[in-house]
Amino acid sequence: MKRVAVVGVGQTTYGLEPERSLKSLFAEAASAAFADVPKGLDPREVEEAFIGSLSTGGSQLGNFAPLMLESAGMVGVAGRHVENACASSGFAFRDAFHAVASGAVRIAVAGGIEKMSDLPRERNRSWLGVSGDVEWERLAGTNFPGIYAMMARRHMHEFGTTKAQITGVAVKNRSNAVSNPKAQVRKAITLEQALATPNLADPFCLADACGITDGASMVILCDWDLAGDLTDRAVEVAGSGAGSDYVAIHDRPSVTQLPATRKAARQAYAQAGIEPEEIDLAEVHDCFTIGEILAYTDLGFCSEAEAGRWLEEGVTARNGRLPVNGSGGLIGKGHPIGATGTGQIYELVNQLRGTAEAPDRQIVDARYGLAHNVGGSGGSVAVHILKAAA
Amino acid sequence: MKRVAVVGVGQTTYGLEPERSLKSLFAEAASAAFADVPKGLDPREVEEAFIGSLSTGGSQLGNFAPLMLESAGMVGVAGRHVENACASSGFAFRDAFHAVASGAVRIAVAGGIEKMSDLPRERNRSWLGVSGDVEWERLAGTNFPGIYAMMARRHMHEFGTTKAQITGVAVKNRSNAVSNPKAQVRKAITLEQALATPNLADPFCLADACGITDGASMVILCDWDLAGDLTDRAVEVAGSGAGSDYVAIHDRPSVTQLPATRKAARQAYAQAGIEPEEIDLAEVHDCFTIGEILAYTDLGFCSEAEAGRWLEEGVTARNGRLPVNGSGGLIGKGHPIGATGTGQIYELVNQLRGTAEAPDRQIVDARYGLAHNVGGSGGSVAVHILKAAA
Repeated sequence: MKRVAVVGVGQTTYGLEPERSLKSLFAEAASAAFADVPKGLDPREVEEAFIGSLSTGGSQLGNFAPLMLESAGMVGVAGRHVENACASSGFAFRDAFHAVASGAVRIAVAGGIEKMSDLPRERNRSWLGVSGDVEWERLAGTNFPGIYAMMARRHMHEFGTTKAQITGVAVKNRSNAVSNPKAQVRKAITLEQALATPNLADPFCLADACGITDGASMVILCDWDLAGDLTDRAVEVAGSGAGSDYVAIHDRPSVTQLPATRKAARQAYAQAGIEPEEIDLAEVHDCFTIGEILAYTDLGFCSEAEAGRWLEEGVTARNGRLPVNGSGGLIGKGHPIGATGTGQIYELVNQLRGTAEAPDRQIVDARYGLAHNVGGSGGSVAVHILKAAA
Repeated sequence: MKRVAVVGVGQTTYGLEPERSLKSLFAEAASAAFADVPKGLDPREVEEAFIGSLSTGGSQLGNFAPLMLESAGMVGVAGRHVENACASSGFAFRDAFHAVASGAVRIAVAGGIEKMSDLPRERNRSWLGVSGDVEWERLAGTNFPGIYAMMARRHMHEFGTTKAQITGVAVKNRSNAVSNPKAQVRKAITLEQALATPNLADPFCLADACGITDGASMVILCDWDLAGDLTDRAVEVAGSGAGSDYVAIHDRPSVTQLPATRKAARQAYAQAGIEPEEIDLAEVHDCFTIGEILAYTDLGFCSEAEAGRWLEEGVTARNGRLPVNGSGGLIGKGHPIGATGTGQIYELVNQLRGTAEAPDRQIVDARYGLAHNVGGSGGSVAVHILKAAA
């Protein structure tokens, strides 16, 4: 297996961009990624492309990848559209990693894009609903807030986790987003204010959920032996793991665990040859606040009973022992579905090589970063471990 | 790079299956593929899955892969949905190949599925239209028959290719389909009858196009070193190539060439270390008759001027020097969009190991087989070369 490097990353500022086209957003992320390669790389030198998206804007449902590649000056590059709901570009990254690791491809890009504002509000709900089990969940009237709310309620019941701890995730992540110029929600919120937002699905209030976001992200990967020709600050893809599960949560033995996360994490740790304790920072899938609490345990950081306290005691705060979602996460930075996975890689790479956009958001001396990207309510999960150059 | 084997293949009989579910079709193809592994393989031993589809049935747009995996007894297996219009499962196969070639994954499946009969007739046209350039082609009123008809007309003008030669592709492929129990259209047609079918888009008549089809296919790949534990009749993936292009044909320098096919073919031949002359049989993308004529040249078999004559003189007939679409191709066997790519692999594997369903359709002593899968009108193309065990 070839060693694989990340040599360039790009991302649009997440937010609502009703006036901009899919192509314009994708081209911006691509252009930023190529500009991020210090010694220069022509987009036409890329050999393979993997593009994550759920809705593909709702109209260009087929051949979506070549159309995006056109916009980014990569006509001819072998590309495909990868879909795994909210984990689409986490899997695009995994597939790019395998292509380069095989030795068949020297330079690949993985990216993601979603333009949720192209879809009417009603349709956004519908699109998101189609990432659950349409037959057994959506048509039965269940929606994502409701599904995650069940997980949260059960976590409270079984492990004594409090609503304040759960909603505390949003307080932390929105605070982190304030200093992130690429984030959508750059306004801090107190716990009191968060708990006072309107009810969403008990025990969630509005502050417990991420919003509607447009955005794109792109990552350039290459054979480690080639990386030195492109940059002096390559970051290594040390481990990649993935898993799937029953899509409908009623089929799972527990609603306070995501087995797909556990499988993906085990695989990624084993490949990287490290233990969870060695992770220095993580970007995890907080589509709802409870998602981050579950991730603490599923990723092997602490037990279910400790998870709520970890949040409360600041272990995962940006200045804590294990900063989680220093970018603001899905709740603060934003969650443009298909772009989220490679957007997490964008954040980790900048942190690991010391190029965070603002000095006050740089996490120092981090060696290993972990990205955790969840499709639906855990139907598909990708976990990646990146390693700073020694 | 690890050597990669195909150790099992499965496919539903292509046709219209309005009463069956996506899950039932997918499970049937999977079950057939596992039953095709002589020494046995438990679906849960599969480590990675790649599932091609364009429409995903029109409702389960997100997390499509894990839902299909559930139906096939592969819960937990890391899967993703791969979309590249009509080349979706050609790319799924390529990605599975890279995953195994990297050494990270030992056993992977690539499959594809489409249930076109779930979509109302009007919507079928709409779904297919979304594989062209929606903005510049579909919204301008162009459809796929029209696009391919322009290619055909130009080929006739530039190279003297005749309508009889072009439509002759349908006559050949429907004749081949008669003996294929997995084919949809098992009724031969004479050239006279074909030319008398209603006008579709000049110079095409109805016989020049493939129809509406439901179906699923699956292929099991593994590390070559493991293949002997599973089967004595493994087929090797000798070469994989892929390319993309402008999606709208008005952006291309010529409408009688698919540059993406040429790029994909060059790459696949180079990886296999062979020349086009060494190919013994091919399954090519005849969504319209002209597609096969173009493929003869783009795949390096003969010049544009020779292509029509090749067909006419029987070079590509089943008993000819280079049998093309011995299965019946998209026109005779059927074209369930997302299933077509791995359906082509199904055919090649059976031919190369001598297990064609009926004795009269077995092509003897074939060493190299080529599969050519086109998305849209050439926006994305995958080419694979399989090699019989010595």
